[in-house]
Amino acid sequence: MASNAACIFCKIIKGEIPSFKLFESDKVFAFLDIQPLSKGHALVVPKFHGEKLADIPDDQLSEILPIVKRVVKATDAVDYNILQNNGRIAHQEVDHVHFHIIPKPNKEEGLSVSWPAQKAEIDTLKKLAEELKAKM
Amino acid sequence: MASNAACIFCKIIKGEIPSFKLFESDKVFAFLDIQPLSKGHALVVPKFHGEKLADIPDDQLSEILPIVKRVVKATDAVDYNILQNNGRIAHQEVDHVHFHIIPKPNKEEGLSVSWPAQKAEIDTLKKLAEELKAKM
Ligand SMILES: [Zn+2]
Ligand SMILES: [Zn+2]
Repeated sequence: MASNAACIFCKIIKGEIPSFKLFESDKVFAFLDIQPLSKGHALVVPKFHGEKLADIPDDQLSEILPIVKRVVKATDAVDYNILQNNGRIAHQEVDHVHFHIIPKPNKEEGLSVSWPAQKAEIDTLKKLAEELKAKM
Repeated sequence: MASNAACIFCKIIKGEIPSFKLFESDKVFAFLDIQPLSKGHALVVPKFHGEKLADIPDDQLSEILPIVKRVVKATDAVDYNILQNNGRIAHQEVDHVHFHIIPKPNKEEGLSVSWPAQKAEIDTLKKLAEELKAKM
């Protein structure tokens, strides 16, 4: 299991730093965010240390969302956001993949996003889809 | 396989509405968002119709992130956000679970979030963690 001695989440997973742990399986660890955006804001992380989603093996990735679902149900949240940030410019602050579970109890609390949609040309999208499809 | 005759994403999955499809497996469908926040903005959805994450069976959930990873790699995005919204107040617009893959090429394009972190008391977090743990 890849681990990084300098990583705060790896230390939490190993119990070297205390956390408000919610759940642990062979491959996944869940705990409360200590700077919550709303009550119940939790993090679900693969135990495998990887900086970004694309660095995590599939057998680790496949176990994450069922655990995210269990955390969501435990919070009793009706409305909520699941967010996973990759890269400093994309708001990632700890370089170990983590999924935020952020209950959205009202307009003020929880995640706020802005949605600057771009004008997309059909021909451009069609060409892009062909390019991406060929690379999958 | 649960499907909803009125759902636009179920229609896309069945091919009744055209889409810029990237990939399809037994349980998962991936296509371009036609109102992209940035180039390569794509959606990955379970074929199972469910409104929110908590409505999707585990065997569907477990197949989603490996496909998300494949789409991310196809886009060549270095920085990116993975976002899944549940509920109108949480910015969900189509009531069929979908994961946004949003490349973040620069500060202007892609997802922008605000992060109104709350002050959390250690005792409050500890009590909450115990409550949630008991419900998992
Ligand atoms: Zn780590
Ligand atoms: Zn649907």
